[in-house]
Amino acid sequence: MNTSTNQPLRIVIVGGVAGGATAAARARRANAKAEIILLEKGPVVSFANCGLPYHIGGDIAQRESLLVTTPELFHKRFRIEVRTQTEALHIDRDKQAVEVIHHPTGEKSSLHYDRLILATGSEPLRPPFYPQQSTNVFQLWTLADMDRILAYLRNNPVQNVAVIGAGFVGLETVEQFHRLGLKVTLLERAPQVLSPLDSEMAALIHNELVHHNVDVIVNADVRELRMNQQQATAIVLADGSEISTDLVLVGAGVRPRVELAKDAGLQLGATGGVTVNQFMQTNDPLIYAVGDMAEYHHGVTDKPSRVPLAGPANRSGRVAGAHAASGKSTEMGSVLGTSVVRVFQLTAACTGLSQRVCGLNKIPHRTVIIQAAHHASYFPGAKNLTLKLIYSPTDGQILGASCVGAEGADKRIDVIATAMHFGGTVDDLAQVDLAYAPPYGSAKDPVHMAAFAASNDLQQWPSLNEPNSDLSGFQVVDVRTAKEQQTLPLPGAIAISVDELSTRWTELDPTRPTICVCHSGKRAHVAACLLKGQGFTDVRNLSGGMSIRRLMVNDK
Amino acid sequence: MNTSTNQPLRIVIVGGVAGGATAAARARRANAKAEIILLEKGPVVSFANCGLPYHIGGDIAQRESLLVTTPELFHKRFRIEVRTQTEALHIDRDKQAVEVIHHPTGEKSSLHYDRLILATGSEPLRPPFYPQQSTNVFQLWTLADMDRILAYLRNNPVQNVAVIGAGFVGLETVEQFHRLGLKVTLLERAPQVLSPLDSEMAALIHNELVHHNVDVIVNADVRELRMNQQQATAIVLADGSEISTDLVLVGAGVRPRVELAKDAGLQLGATGGVTVNQFMQTNDPLIYAVGDMAEYHHGVTDKPSRVPLAGPANRSGRVAGAHAASGKSTEMGSVLGTSVVRVFQLTAACTGLSQRVCGLNKIPHRTVIIQAAHHASYFPGAKNLTLKLIYSPTDGQILGASCVGAEGADKRIDVIATAMHFGGTVDDLAQVDLAYAPPYGSAKDPVHMAAFAASNDLQQWPSLNEPNSDLSGFQVVDVRTAKEQQTLPLPGAIAISVDELSTRWTELDPTRPTICVCHSGKRAHVAACLLKGQGFTDVRNLSGGMSIRRLMVNDK
Repeated sequence: MNTSTNQPLRIVIVGGVAGGATAAARARRANAKAEIILLEKGPVVSFANCGLPYHIGGDIAQRESLLVTTPELFHKRFRIEVRTQTEALHIDRDKQAVEVIHHPTGEKSSLHYDRLILATGSEPLRPPFYPQQSTNVFQLWTLADMDRILAYLRNNPVQNVAVIGAGFVGLETVEQFHRLGLKVTLLERAPQVLSPLDSEMAALIHNELVHHNVDVIVNADVRELRMNQQQATAIVLADGSEISTDLVLVGAGVRPRVELAKDAGLQLGATGGVTVNQFMQTNDPLIYAVGDMAEYHHGVTDKPSRVPLAGPANRSGRVAGAHAASGKSTEMGSVLGTSVVRVFQLTAACTGLSQRVCGLNKIPHRTVIIQAAHHASYFPGAKNLTLKLIYSPTDGQILGASCVGAEGADKRIDVIATAMHFGGTVDDLAQVDLAYAPPYGSAKDPVHMAAFAASNDLQQWPSLNEPNSDLSGFQVVDVRTAKEQQTLPLPGAIAISVDELSTRWTELDPTRPTICVCHSGKRAHVAACLLKGQGFTDVRNLSGGMSIRRLMVNDK
Repeated sequence: MNTSTNQPLRIVIVGGVAGGATAAARARRANAKAEIILLEKGPVVSFANCGLPYHIGGDIAQRESLLVTTPELFHKRFRIEVRTQTEALHIDRDKQAVEVIHHPTGEKSSLHYDRLILATGSEPLRPPFYPQQSTNVFQLWTLADMDRILAYLRNNPVQNVAVIGAGFVGLETVEQFHRLGLKVTLLERAPQVLSPLDSEMAALIHNELVHHNVDVIVNADVRELRMNQQQATAIVLADGSEISTDLVLVGAGVRPRVELAKDAGLQLGATGGVTVNQFMQTNDPLIYAVGDMAEYHHGVTDKPSRVPLAGPANRSGRVAGAHAASGKSTEMGSVLGTSVVRVFQLTAACTGLSQRVCGLNKIPHRTVIIQAAHHASYFPGAKNLTLKLIYSPTDGQILGASCVGAEGADKRIDVIATAMHFGGTVDDLAQVDLAYAPPYGSAKDPVHMAAFAASNDLQQWPSLNEPNSDLSGFQVVDVRTAKEQQTLPLPGAIAISVDELSTRWTELDPTRPTICVCHSGKRAHVAACLLKGQGFTDVRNLSGGMSIRRLMVNDK
């Protein structure tokens, strides 16, 4: 068989969940006559994997809601042949054929392809302590995983659960376990929860977890699970401490499923994902890779990256489907790793690089962190947002952002991610014309406020110091009110409230490096401008003020 | 006096509300030593004018919440001298002096300036029928206006109120009157409510008003108010009909307050606003104009425009304040007229140009309209969003957008406005990496869905037809289910559901211009792709499907 016959083009897609189903449907729209075959190892063509945690706690009441499509619909609407419980075992690139096995029958066969789209996704990592056999230790990646957890909860007297790993799935599951009335312990190997966020932003989420009675243990080096027969009864940490538990959920990250691709000699990148071009073609132009298993171009680092998230998986599937079916497509855009998670009453969202990642990669950067109401503060229901921007010290290009708050954090991150798509700077962000009415925002949106502060910083008007700066060596001016100073003292500071500073600045030494501090950084900016204007040689503003510093430093 | 003496730079600012207070505070931060004087005709230095409607109905319970700052704070924190109840009467540009009157005493004086910032704002239009004297006919622009309305409501047995003008303030006030249990009639001269939106989007808001028992009268040509003494008792329309009322609120738009600027010989633009450069300087470089009275550069038309909204007013004040005080500033960005309003359970937001405005200005454009859930449809609480994109037929540049829905409309418009800041195209929008988790969005966000549809349209994959297209001459294929067809019939259409089309397309004539129709345009896209792929010469998709068409056309 070859493509020069009158046979219709045959497109074979391996995997439905992580971009495969999208690729198939898009391929059909791009080519009415192609033969399209979707192979899926699992029992369903595709399901809403992001929804799995929410069915555990009952937020999503019906299991059926998670089944996004059916083989029948795919056949009727798109004339796509879906073969479930069918796994691709091997790709013979010379013969353009996939060797497949149909698991229920064990039957193996060879399937010719003209174009092959790999969407094998990723799979959860199993740390060394993960038991070979157990009845109550789970991961949560598939419908079957979810069903097993629910069955266990239904049939066993579970009171204490442990979640190992404070990433997205871990946190979502913590919330759902809590919703079921279970006592939850969350263990995380890193020094903080939610590692895509910088530590001070993550601290806000940490506090929210504690506020909801979750025991949070960071720097948790899980040594082993104490097993009774196949039943985990406790988690043993490296320091010897043990946490009793009735159920363990492990969410320790994912790795790309690239065995099939690797075995076929397709090129893998440094990230471990499959190397692709802008149309998601691998080094074999007849073979595409999409979703979690593939590398995407990162919009900030300009390097290949792996981003196991549903948005890019869908978009890459769309690109590959069109290109495989018709030879043309719009290009796959860059990714930024934009993501969001709900943790009880808070939302945490981020895009681009964190400050930590910038540091690890020696990417020059500056940061600002602000607090502002999510809508007009005079309108009832205004909730506080904490917004952090990371930007280039030379041209102000936005490198990343994160936002935590009860309302509107997702909106701010989406706006910033959109600016980042265009390589926007903090000055761009200061100028974007956003929608304002009292129930929705402010005339100066939190996005603007953060951009203003960053722009001031870059113009040294005045410069910002990191919230956790070493203040020794500085003349520290605490411009808060006496009452604020009492509530949260900053020892060693000279106390002059911002509203007294215009008459009292003469009490300060203009030749010493000086830093102004308030609660959030706003009044300290006013104060620092005053001192700078009065000829102080080196004036700074403590970014984020005491509200952020207290999350990072315990001032004696 | 002149600036070469050792006198500090004196910056005089006329008007506090519309960008003036912001300019003053920013000027101080840019120049610690300048003398800054803020003249304000009214009794308070600044107030939250966008909040006025919400205090009428009690959403904002405390009147004090609306007072955003005080002369005392301005003095203590910023050393800004605020002179309230003080009006600028005349500018002598040669002498660099403003003639002012202090209203309580009637005292006039001349005030030298080195830099002058005009922020005189705008004022509501008074249509011809507005009575010279009345006790119960109001506008709503100042705190005093609001106080008068509240006093009247308190002291009189009001049951029926009429709001004339269905713009932002009108609609917000309708909602608040309704909140007070009043029976509201809304009259609008135009054929639709909310003229910044195109008619089909506005129809969604119209329906929401009617659903909340508001009598909405469009094409309402108000001839006069029937007066009994100074009491309006009815509204008389041109067709002779009368609407009895106990109170009338007129919200008929605003005009810029430019008398002072005009009298001083400052250049006005075609829009009636003051001409300024990127630093908000008028043709006299010592004089700045900011806020509603000034022209902004429009990001789409590339022409001067007037946008009487708080966001640009604040940002322009910030630019002028810095530049007047220090001779430098970041530039004022372009505006897009991005705006949002809450109308009962719905939000309407828009940015850039509407289709109507494109048409009036002969700007080539195409449009798409989609419906999608505001977050994952499988997650509880998903609400429908209707999103319209207007874009260039040549390069896909986004010209404008509007969105109506119960949740998340503001977010989508902010994302699109941000893309428009960069001159983004629909392909850019299809690529933006937005945050997704089930409570916040979808892997394919409504923004993506609209961009995908627009991108398909531009690639004629297949082309879209406007929702209200004349379908005569087309082979119309209704691909909805039989049940949908029954509920909302499309007479003259050939009924073949999308899931039957792959076997039944042979019943159609491939040589005839063909249009596919479904409920929202999504299945019709699938169907149109199929027909196009089968060699149909001219295939279209009815944009927005029957869900939008029914708002615009009554198919017989």
